[in-house]
Amino acid sequence: MKKETHKILLWLALLFSSVQVFAQPPRGPYVRSPQVHDDQTVTFSYLAPDAKSVLLDGDQFGASNIPMTKDSIGIWSITVGPLKPDIYPYAFKVDGITVMDPANVDFFPNERFKASLVDVPGDKPLMHALQNVPHGTITYEYYPSVEGSTGQLVVYTPPGYNKDAAKKYPVYYLISGTTDTEEDFFKVARVNFIMDNMIAEGKAKPMIIVMPYGNPIARIAEQTGGPKPNDVMNRDSEDAIKRLKFFETDLITNVIPYVENSYRVIPNGENRAIGGFSRGGGQTLRAAFNNMGTFEYVCSYASYISPSELESNYGELINNHTKTNNQLKLLWSGIGTEDFLYKGTTEFNQFLIDHKIELKTYETDGGHTWMNVKKYLNQTLPLLFK
Amino acid sequence: MKKETHKILLWLALLFSSVQVFAQPPRGPYVRSPQVHDDQTVTFSYLAPDAKSVLLDGDQFGASNIPMTKDSIGIWSITVGPLKPDIYPYAFKVDGITVMDPANVDFFPNERFKASLVDVPGDKPLMHALQNVPHGTITYEYYPSVEGSTGQLVVYTPPGYNKDAAKKYPVYYLISGTTDTEEDFFKVARVNFIMDNMIAEGKAKPMIIVMPYGNPIARIAEQTGGPKPNDVMNRDSEDAIKRLKFFETDLITNVIPYVENSYRVIPNGENRAIGGFSRGGGQTLRAAFNNMGTFEYVCSYASYISPSELESNYGELINNHTKTNNQLKLLWSGIGTEDFLYKGTTEFNQFLIDHKIELKTYETDGGHTWMNVKKYLNQTLPLLFK
Repeated sequence: MKKETHKILLWLALLFSSVQVFAQPPRGPYVRSPQVHDDQTVTFSYLAPDAKSVLLDGDQFGASNIPMTKDSIGIWSITVGPLKPDIYPYAFKVDGITVMDPANVDFFPNERFKASLVDVPGDKPLMHALQNVPHGTITYEYYPSVEGSTGQLVVYTPPGYNKDAAKKYPVYYLISGTTDTEEDFFKVARVNFIMDNMIAEGKAKPMIIVMPYGNPIARIAEQTGGPKPNDVMNRDSEDAIKRLKFFETDLITNVIPYVENSYRVIPNGENRAIGGFSRGGGQTLRAAFNNMGTFEYVCSYASYISPSELESNYGELINNHTKTNNQLKLLWSGIGTEDFLYKGTTEFNQFLIDHKIELKTYETDGGHTWMNVKKYLNQTLPLLFK
Repeated sequence: MKKETHKILLWLALLFSSVQVFAQPPRGPYVRSPQVHDDQTVTFSYLAPDAKSVLLDGDQFGASNIPMTKDSIGIWSITVGPLKPDIYPYAFKVDGITVMDPANVDFFPNERFKASLVDVPGDKPLMHALQNVPHGTITYEYYPSVEGSTGQLVVYTPPGYNKDAAKKYPVYYLISGTTDTEEDFFKVARVNFIMDNMIAEGKAKPMIIVMPYGNPIARIAEQTGGPKPNDVMNRDSEDAIKRLKFFETDLITNVIPYVENSYRVIPNGENRAIGGFSRGGGQTLRAAFNNMGTFEYVCSYASYISPSELESNYGELINNHTKTNNQLKLLWSGIGTEDFLYKGTTEFNQFLIDHKIELKTYETDGGHTWMNVKKYLNQTLPLLFK
């Protein structure tokens, strides 16, 4: 970091001098990346005078390992597209090493990979775009979680939440997937702007959205130095079963009471929804089915429970469809045709339908991506609490 | 991203099977990094079977470009320390390319460089440690900013803010530096945990802390496609002067009214403080001196105004020390002896002292770093609103 630090220091020194009004950039030539053009093409740039090759790693918009071109001062760049308006992850492969875009502050929070995000706007603003409408807020809350750990929740409150101290709201518990963090629905899906826009258009009811972390065992290990979550263990051991239940136990005994004690919510099943993506979808279905009555709206985004697990663990629910249908105002399952969980999800859907469980299904193109998560949000948020 | 995506998909598939309880990691050998040991040594690890060299880029804890060692499966690692307990930025240099640690979700929000953060705890919890005390919250707010843009504010509210709907609070406006974002006092300095701990110990008064973005011109360009902020221009042009004033105009005419309309604050100078680091320190001093009476507590973290600018722009303030001292309950200036702004800051301090302006100074070791920012917070937060 020494060389960079020196450059930053020099740059800051310029800022503080009285001669220079707009400083030179901290790293030689100032790279602006990505640059989204009016025709929805995008130019990506990366400064690496000494690199032998720089590739654009934009698999999710069809630009898989595209070689970039170096200019005379060592900035590699490429223009791709026009891209279908959306928010996409991307990275650079610099001599084979995957890196985020250092010029871009929009990143993809994830426990395993590091990617940057590019936002390609539509000709008309997309539902996740920052628009000139009243805005809600996102709050990071700290709550007493399982095993003495402290959990972090990301919470959306709708516009005007702080204005009318009497109004109470329904709550949507929304869980992200494996290797995601509790920040992804905020930072990647921009669920806050989606809600702001839907509320402004009268499409969705004002609600609170609570986004917990899906893997509390990892956080406990982090905070207490306890056993690590990915140790291979006997799956039938008490400890293994306890670990598997951690998320649900935390949700039911810690998260919901904390939220209902801290926010102005309507604390009943009719005003409680649960949804999740990928692993979070599995957690959603199990938490809902294990606690019937707690959540009357249930949304699975690209996930499922296998028919054999449904039969062995949820037989009563499957076989008493009238009772089950009365207890659920919405059971929703969405999947992309290219999603690697497509087959399992359609089997799950069919199994429920065969058992006369009322299920709304949604199928779209695309894979197991956060672009599709936004589609699922766009489909389901208008259905909640109505 | 294709290969990684496949591995993640496989991993997720395992998660969804009913046989496997704890899945295999998504990227071959599961790398846990950093690992902070009880003796405050730290092991950093990075998976790169094909790399020729991997260096630890931990300049800020004295580990500048230290070669790491590859094991038989391609994980490079090194153990350094014991390190003085603190939160430090670091990165890896993989065949000369600087990358964040992909196994670590704690990153340093910055517009130019990408670094990860390692938290080395003390034997006794440090002031920024997550402790078992009542916690405040961090909220992301969206407000109407200059030139039709929408600004993002990061806001700390103290524990119990939502419990007592009658209590009103003082506000500290806290501005980060060049290339920083409005998230850095939260994500890097953990000012929320510092406040939680200080309030629990009775060291600081409960207050709201508002963290605006320091460079609204860049955000305007981003949102409106307007002129880019770093174009070289005539510093005397109207446009240049307007740009320079953007931050202060935004703060005074947009941020403060928005905050005072949205939060339960005590809206007077006695209950308004302003502080900032680096460029944010310069903005702090100018905003305070240009608007005497608005902020009665003023904290400059590693920054200054030159004597010549003080003389030409703030002569009345400098020359009427009795009036000035009456208008300011606290004027505070802190700097590290190795900070590249040390000389300028000590000249600024001396100039004020020579002019009988009451000034609290603080000198510590260390440079222009966020480790030092935490020291400045630890020094100043207990002084505010008392």
